[in-house]
Amino acid sequence: MLRIAIIGATGIVGQQAIVSLIGHPWFKIAKLAASERSAGKNYRDALKDANGSSRWWCTEELPAEIGNMPVEDASTFDPTSVDIIFSTMDAGPAKELEPKYAKTTPVISTASAFRYESDTPILVGGVNMDHAALLAVQQKNRGWKGFISPKSNCTIAGLVVSLKPIQDAFGVKQVVMTSLQAMSGAGRTPGLSAMDMMENVVPYIPGEEPKVETEPQKILGKFTGETIADAAFGITATCTRVPVIDGHMVCAFVQTVKPCTPEDVKKAMMNYGKDFAELHLPSSPAHLIDVTDDPFRPQPRMDRENGGGMTVTVGRIRKDPILENGIKYVCLAHNTKLGAAKGALQTAEYLVKNYLKLI
Amino acid sequence: MLRIAIIGATGIVGQQAIVSLIGHPWFKIAKLAASERSAGKNYRDALKDANGSSRWWCTEELPAEIGNMPVEDASTFDPTSVDIIFSTMDAGPAKELEPKYAKTTPVISTASAFRYESDTPILVGGVNMDHAALLAVQQKNRGWKGFISPKSNCTIAGLVVSLKPIQDAFGVKQVVMTSLQAMSGAGRTPGLSAMDMMENVVPYIPGEEPKVETEPQKILGKFTGETIADAAFGITATCTRVPVIDGHMVCAFVQTVKPCTPEDVKKAMMNYGKDFAELHLPSSPAHLIDVTDDPFRPQPRMDRENGGGMTVTVGRIRKDPILENGIKYVCLAHNTKLGAAKGALQTAEYLVKNYLKLI
Amino acid sequence: MLRIAIIGATGIVGQQAIVSLIGHPWFKIAKLAASERSAGKNYRDALKDANGSSRWWCTEELPAEIGNMPVEDASTFDPTSVDIIFSTMDAGPAKELEPKYAKTTPVISTASAFRYESDTPILVGGVNMDHAALLAVQQKNRGWKGFISPKSNCTIAGLVVSLKPIQDAFGVKQVVMTSLQAMSGAGRTPGLSAMDMMENVVPYIPGEEPKVETEPQKILGKFTGETIADAAFGITATCTRVPVIDGHMVCAFVQTVKPCTPEDVKKAMMNYGKDFAELHLPSSPAHLIDVTDDPFRPQPRMDRENGGGMTVTVGRIRKDPILENGIKYVCLAHNTKLGAAKGALQTAEYLVKNYLKLI
Amino acid sequence: MLRIAIIGATGIVGQQAIVSLIGHPWFKIAKLAASERSAGKNYRDALKDANGSSRWWCTEELPAEIGNMPVEDASTFDPTSVDIIFSTMDAGPAKELEPKYAKTTPVISTASAFRYESDTPILVGGVNMDHAALLAVQQKNRGWKGFISPKSNCTIAGLVVSLKPIQDAFGVKQVVMTSLQAMSGAGRTPGLSAMDMMENVVPYIPGEEPKVETEPQKILGKFTGETIADAAFGITATCTRVPVIDGHMVCAFVQTVKPCTPEDVKKAMMNYGKDFAELHLPSSPAHLIDVTDDPFRPQPRMDRENGGGMTVTVGRIRKDPILENGIKYVCLAHNTKLGAAKGALQTAEYLVKNYLKLI
Repeated sequence: MLRIAIIGATGIVGQQAIVSLIGHPWFKIAKLAASERSAGKNYRDALKDANGSSRWWCTEELPAEIGNMPVEDASTFDPTSVDIIFSTMDAGPAKELEPKYAKTTPVISTASAFRYESDTPILVGGVNMDHAALLAVQQKNRGWKGFISPKSNCTIAGLVVSLKPIQDAFGVKQVVMTSLQAMSGAGRTPGLSAMDMMENVVPYIPGEEPKVETEPQKILGKFTGETIADAAFGITATCTRVPVIDGHMVCAFVQTVKPCTPEDVKKAMMNYGKDFAELHLPSSPAHLIDVTDDPFRPQPRMDRENGGGMTVTVGRIRKDPILENGIKYVCLAHNTKLGAAKGALQTAEYLVKNYLKLI
Repeated sequence: MLRIAIIGATGIVGQQAIVSLIGHPWFKIAKLAASERSAGKNYRDALKDANGSSRWWCTEELPAEIGNMPVEDASTFDPTSVDIIFSTMDAGPAKELEPKYAKTTPVISTASAFRYESDTPILVGGVNMDHAALLAVQQKNRGWKGFISPKSNCTIAGLVVSLKPIQDAFGVKQVVMTSLQAMSGAGRTPGLSAMDMMENVVPYIPGEEPKVETEPQKILGKFTGETIADAAFGITATCTRVPVIDGHMVCAFVQTVKPCTPEDVKKAMMNYGKDFAELHLPSSPAHLIDVTDDPFRPQPRMDRENGGGMTVTVGRIRKDPILENGIKYVCLAHNTKLGAAKGALQTAEYLVKNYLKLI
Repeated sequence: MLRIAIIGATGIVGQQAIVSLIGHPWFKIAKLAASERSAGKNYRDALKDANGSSRWWCTEELPAEIGNMPVEDASTFDPTSVDIIFSTMDAGPAKELEPKYAKTTPVISTASAFRYESDTPILVGGVNMDHAALLAVQQKNRGWKGFISPKSNCTIAGLVVSLKPIQDAFGVKQVVMTSLQAMSGAGRTPGLSAMDMMENVVPYIPGEEPKVETEPQKILGKFTGETIADAAFGITATCTRVPVIDGHMVCAFVQTVKPCTPEDVKKAMMNYGKDFAELHLPSSPAHLIDVTDDPFRPQPRMDRENGGGMTVTVGRIRKDPILENGIKYVCLAHNTKLGAAKGALQTAEYLVKNYLKLI
Repeated sequence: MLRIAIIGATGIVGQQAIVSLIGHPWFKIAKLAASERSAGKNYRDALKDANGSSRWWCTEELPAEIGNMPVEDASTFDPTSVDIIFSTMDAGPAKELEPKYAKTTPVISTASAFRYESDTPILVGGVNMDHAALLAVQQKNRGWKGFISPKSNCTIAGLVVSLKPIQDAFGVKQVVMTSLQAMSGAGRTPGLSAMDMMENVVPYIPGEEPKVETEPQKILGKFTGETIADAAFGITATCTRVPVIDGHMVCAFVQTVKPCTPEDVKKAMMNYGKDFAELHLPSSPAHLIDVTDDPFRPQPRMDRENGGGMTVTVGRIRKDPILENGIKYVCLAHNTKLGAAKGALQTAEYLVKNYLKLI
């Protein structure tokens, strides 16, 4: 078993990482670390708020042995005490601490701090595994034994999976999209106000649209040997917040390079990802994409857990009435599973097996 | 005071019509009619369900004098007993009964039955008042003393108001839009299931997208003397249902014919509708459009009652990063006020004053 | 493996029964039956509504082999073709059909049709297993080879589990309770209206309070050899519906016969049910009751899945400030698991093993 | 017009006070004050958060002339510059500052700081107006020209109105109650977390039950000439938070001294408050209590605005099946209108007219 440390363990993504790792066949949670405020307590106590109420937000039970683990201080954490670091810190501390860890140890990160570096790939399971080779460039450039491998923004995690088979078969020319995003993406303390979200929609998510409009081109880009050449299509987005717990929905209007029918797109999506599934990574679903013919689906509450929260559900694929080579569809992905901790874990599994070859 | 009859009075739109007419300076509710099932009862009793619970759904109190009014049978209703007919029936009975009424009496309708007839305008307050002249063509064609004037689909009621100043100043070339629609649009008995809508989004509304993709071109078209020539732009839409009571939001990506900046668009919207406001119709708001600079607005629960539910709130106007001459924004309108009974009432007021010249 | 038939298989409780039986170590779903309308179709097709949308409401996937099973007509179903009948019909058809089945075959029922018969126990897992002996009386009285064993009302399923250790240790004298019930209890087609339940509470559930005020006394009563003598305490209830998907909460004010402290009650609850747990029934949880010290718990969304939806979560146990020997607490149970299909399945497991001795 | 100052003007209750005072026939908002952080800005700017978004949370528009008013520092505010002070500060600053103001000026307060002082009444409109005489004792005791008159806890504001006619006619012996409280009671920054409240119930509100279990006895007590002798009944409560914006519901089980029927209670409630209504205070409703026969009512979303948010709606009055002289019912009151700013304003109106005799 490989020893893994979760840094930022008390936050909501850290908690999801813990849940994702319970009973994992390859990884064992060896260490937990968080900010100075939590350091020195055991994990269960570190989660208690001022009222004595537990800030353990997962519906899965906190395993007793994790609750009893000591929480170390992230800023003084010794990365050589583990084989893999799973960083779920905010972008600020990630920027500072992840490079220190990466000198010696591979870092899988859910933070955005290094996503836009030219020697750093944004790996999305089954979509751009060949970009993992850029990590060697990063290691060489920076003189690191380890590396930093960040996950993508959670909103586009599902979109890029749905775009990849379209890109492969027909080429992507342009994407216009509106997202209807779940509240868990805004975190928990304090997160969104109940008075704002009840019976309401908030049509703005600070900082979101710029990420959504640039990350997919990198993820779907081409590894040149030295960096990633962005894919040559544009995205325009409006990102909204809806009163849903988990599950980001994207209403996409896609123009392809070559003409295609909804049936063509459906077939491409359903055939997609077989090679990746055959790697049998523990966190990978049987299908990367499920296409539903029910016009009322996908729905966040009904479909987000598809494939253990790792399958993207696509529905309403139809010909666009006005856009040239236009296809429109709706896709849904679990923002805190595929789009966060579990998606990053899947990447960790891939890298451990196929890049580090430790399994 | 002009005598008005509400046909379809027990339904949710009929109820809203009643509320909109309480204390109206020009119109007096003289008659109520509904289906055979309700006919013969007084209105209050006609609203009782099998459990004895009232199906009066407005938060405004039902006035005692309305509650005591008898409900007549719509199929045998005498249209000459009133000056104006306000029809809130479903499309089926509207198709059959509205022409009978229109032989003698002006009919303002919230149903879609006659929207797509070539001699029938779809009037939206302040947007296309010159289309009222088509009613004379309709009257001549059909040999009616009265007419049928239908309101638009509720989803695009706000969109067309926001597009009109853009069309006037810069021309509209193309619209890509996603709607986030409130549940009241689906009616009440049974309406949507609570189990479907709780903590969820349903990405499909049967029959909605075709209306959304065709009505705006007619509403924003040109009266030729004999019919309406549709405006020459295309719309593509995805319509979704969100857990909101009232207030349809549209996330619009608009390409204009002439280039324009977000500031230009804001100015055009804010200057828009002054002539119409000066008619001082009782149901008209002071501003047809409010533009907000708060990036988190408009929000359905906070902004739907703007201008008594008759003002369209527009926010997040910004330059599109990829579309040629592209502007994106979010607009919100009250679907059961501007988009239904009160919007139709505003049209009735306009027609009574400026077309029929009864005031 | 014992062959089980699910009668009423297309309804929401029937669907939950299917989900609860997937991978069951003792039972195999051998037959599905429903009303005439569904009979003759395969199960997947029987679930399709007029729009072609599936009325499969569980978030768990419908197994392909179940989807392909034929649906038989409940009214002509041959009960001898299976070993156990799991009836999830409504009370009306249950009243008529269950006795026909019971002539030859054991019937576990989620309907209320036979709950109040003097020769019929209302079995609740771990609470009154000795009442199973009343089934022999029923069989003798009615000349049945099989029997009818109904589950309790879902609202009191959790309450009686929480009351049993109090009754055993201190005696129960009186219960005043308010329930905050989830929407799934009202079924699905059409179920509750989204417009009624959004941002609202409905303080009435037709027919609920009389059941709540009488079933617990029978469940906690004493088997006399011929019937059940009701326990000698009174219950008064107000039952409300809240905008929650699953999980019925009860705020209970309990007066005991002997004085006791909150600590006493907590201890009694935590020690409760060990014998029952040792039977290791497949659907039984490790603990029948979990007592939480977090004052903000139990919460429906966070705690309903406790113990696979079969553990009752109790919190806020405190001394009542005014009632003699008064204790107040809040308890939560999953209404469609413990309170419906899975609770009935647990009873079936008990009866198969300990009454029928087939395992 | 009397000059009124709103202290704590930027908070949610202060905002509601502003809305309640728009167009008031007796009072003019002369001054606004808040904490040091807001002091020196105009009101509109003081409401802006770090994102530039307005924290004006009322759906009513902020009047331009109020937006332009300067905000003074509450700690140095000159109380002699106005005729009446409306304090909506939190308990901490209220404890310190209200006595300073009261030296010269009458203070109407929504804070709990002085509620439990023996020389201070808790006035609830129409319930205990004779307790106003205790203010003279307070003034004498403390050597104040002004006084402090606090409103009650918002949860029991509706309950005490419903109990008063019962007390008058039959005597109240004991109350067992569960509240289902709206989220607005928890304030706005940050208020409750959307992730906690979505599709959930939280069965605990810190500090609430002790207030609920003691204030009604004082409010319904007897003025002795020197203090209030508490009414001689006990209350036990469980207070829960439900996903509702506004409107606190109480499910009450009341035992009376003399026996009475539900019809008796209904009649007593419907006849109640006529004297108070005849004072024609601007904020008073036509009826203090409305009794509904619809078993599904009252509902928060449908009934909270009854009487401009100042009428208590009572439903489901029925005989208790087990409690001696027991009646059970459900009552609903608007927590931020009757239970907060507007209720306090009604008290201010009463005191200005009948105690200070300024009108």
